[in-house]
Amino acid sequence: MKTYNNKQWIYTQRPEKLVDDHHYSLQENTISTTDVKPGEALIQSTYFSVDPYMRIQQSAKKTWEEPHPLNTVQGGAVVGKIIAINSKDSNLNEGDWVLSYTGWQQYAIAETSSLRKLDPEEVPVTTALGVLGMPARIAYFGLIEAGKPKKGQTVVVSGASGAVGQVVVQVAKIKGCKVIGIAGSEEKTSYLKNTLGVDEIINYKNHPSALAMKEELARICPEGIDIYYDNVGGYITDAIFELINLKARIIICGQISQYSGGLDNPEMGPRFLHHMLYKRATIQGVLARDYNDRMDEMLKEMTPWVQQGLIKYKETIVEGFDQLPKALNMLFYGKNTGKLIVKS
Amino acid sequence: MKTYNNKQWIYTQRPEKLVDDHHYSLQENTISTTDVKPGEALIQSTYFSVDPYMRIQQSAKKTWEEPHPLNTVQGGAVVGKIIAINSKDSNLNEGDWVLSYTGWQQYAIAETSSLRKLDPEEVPVTTALGVLGMPARIAYFGLIEAGKPKKGQTVVVSGASGAVGQVVVQVAKIKGCKVIGIAGSEEKTSYLKNTLGVDEIINYKNHPSALAMKEELARICPEGIDIYYDNVGGYITDAIFELINLKARIIICGQISQYSGGLDNPEMGPRFLHHMLYKRATIQGVLARDYNDRMDEMLKEMTPWVQQGLIKYKETIVEGFDQLPKALNMLFYGKNTGKLIVKS
Repeated sequence: MKTYNNKQWIYTQRPEKLVDDHHYSLQENTISTTDVKPGEALIQSTYFSVDPYMRIQQSAKKTWEEPHPLNTVQGGAVVGKIIAINSKDSNLNEGDWVLSYTGWQQYAIAETSSLRKLDPEEVPVTTALGVLGMPARIAYFGLIEAGKPKKGQTVVVSGASGAVGQVVVQVAKIKGCKVIGIAGSEEKTSYLKNTLGVDEIINYKNHPSALAMKEELARICPEGIDIYYDNVGGYITDAIFELINLKARIIICGQISQYSGGLDNPEMGPRFLHHMLYKRATIQGVLARDYNDRMDEMLKEMTPWVQQGLIKYKETIVEGFDQLPKALNMLFYGKNTGKLIVKS
Repeated sequence: MKTYNNKQWIYTQRPEKLVDDHHYSLQENTISTTDVKPGEALIQSTYFSVDPYMRIQQSAKKTWEEPHPLNTVQGGAVVGKIIAINSKDSNLNEGDWVLSYTGWQQYAIAETSSLRKLDPEEVPVTTALGVLGMPARIAYFGLIEAGKPKKGQTVVVSGASGAVGQVVVQVAKIKGCKVIGIAGSEEKTSYLKNTLGVDEIINYKNHPSALAMKEELARICPEGIDIYYDNVGGYITDAIFELINLKARIIICGQISQYSGGLDNPEMGPRFLHHMLYKRATIQGVLARDYNDRMDEMLKEMTPWVQQGLIKYKETIVEGFDQLPKALNMLFYGKNTGKLIVKS
């Protein structure tokens, strides 16, 4: 028997605007190998996923599910190591790296059936949170199935240097599209242009209104926009509607500009539905969980691309379990390039 | 040789808000049977279609095509009689009723290949402008193809007593849906309930805000909304988004509340795209012309329904060619029930 001192980030207070430390409380307890029941494993968490959807779940209004319950451990994906296991027929062993959904705690017990085994020889284990994880799954299926990209078409991606966006732009390039990446700093647009190879970049901070953004997009895309993959919403999205082509596909993967208050008390913006009529266009909301059962299909295609460097990626790794709420807050200031991860 | 005194409504001035007589000029000229070239027919116009899309085409901004040119005859569908024909191999004859796209003029010459022959023994010829015409085509294909109605699903229709709406609600009933019709007077809601047999009605004038409309819809549709067929836009549409079900389909056929200025200078409204994400819903714009080549398919299904009274309809017929611009203006005050037609 072994006992571990555990720390947990408990979600204690609903944020009205930006989320930060005030909405969490750091609690300590102990967890023991004797707590592990048959069919379970004890995991030592190493890498914690920090995702915009966490803030959506803090909206007071119902979203795709009930709001995240108060006074519970903040949920989320984790990459960690099995340090004890109580299961005979599992192909999991002590010392294995796994992906779990055990949230913001340093040690956690999970059913072995809920774990995905990771092979550190194949790809770095952190990729299970980003470029080969949930963000990649919705990037891939959202673009392919809702976007239906065809060679030569023009694809605009907002939040292009984020965990989802960095995959979308590269899959769109692989599909033979002209790709425009929108992001919020020179570092990010340089990454998009020089590392990921997008065709055109826009630093939205240089075009701080819908009109200015529309003019820049019109200059860059005189042929119009066939696909808009939206992670951001707000004025950047407003700028799109006058530029879409016939039968354009708009994919709503995220609306991060609206998360810090706008989900409960919507912002006002220009009405645009008449453009859907003009162009017989489609807007479709997509969510990663709808493709849970197609994870293997995505991995089969994407893993070789990542191994061969055809798909590149960045991770922003924040050191220290204590930094988790601050790291979540960073997302809404655009402080991350690529996937944001906290290392314990 | 015969010569006719012709009157034409010339579109002379772009409206900024509501359209009325000021934007047209009534001109007179003559037209002669000797003007009819080989392959053409001279038509005496009897019934003129008056449609909301005419106001869209008056927007200063590009829509699905360039704005309607100034100083030309107002375009539009017409039901009339052939009074002279210069064609040997056509199956059209003098005296035949036809549907043409010759616009607001009492006499017009058209290529016989552009005419659709109408059989007054089969159904009243005015139906070619409404319940078996363009409005029915987009009602039918918009609902079936973009809406994909399934038995037992809940369908909300705005502008439900108009030319398109009256068909949508009945096709949705035929498909086994629960149908809620929204319209703007007791006369209209009574028509929807008592003649067309919709399940629930809402007079939007009794619910004059998005919040009030949402509360009424929530009361009537505790099971949520699967399909929203939108002819209206504005606050009625705003009310929908918190009530849609998983994988809901929103069909944008019209946005009539926005046509009197909002197409050029968009109104502001609450942002709602996050709801598309929550519900993985779809918004699709539809336009009648996309289904031009499937007219026969629609007529084959719908004509027996109209003949058997399974699909009922109303027409609001305004007497007098001189009334055409005033009649167009009526649409934006909701003065018509069913299809609005001017009789010359």
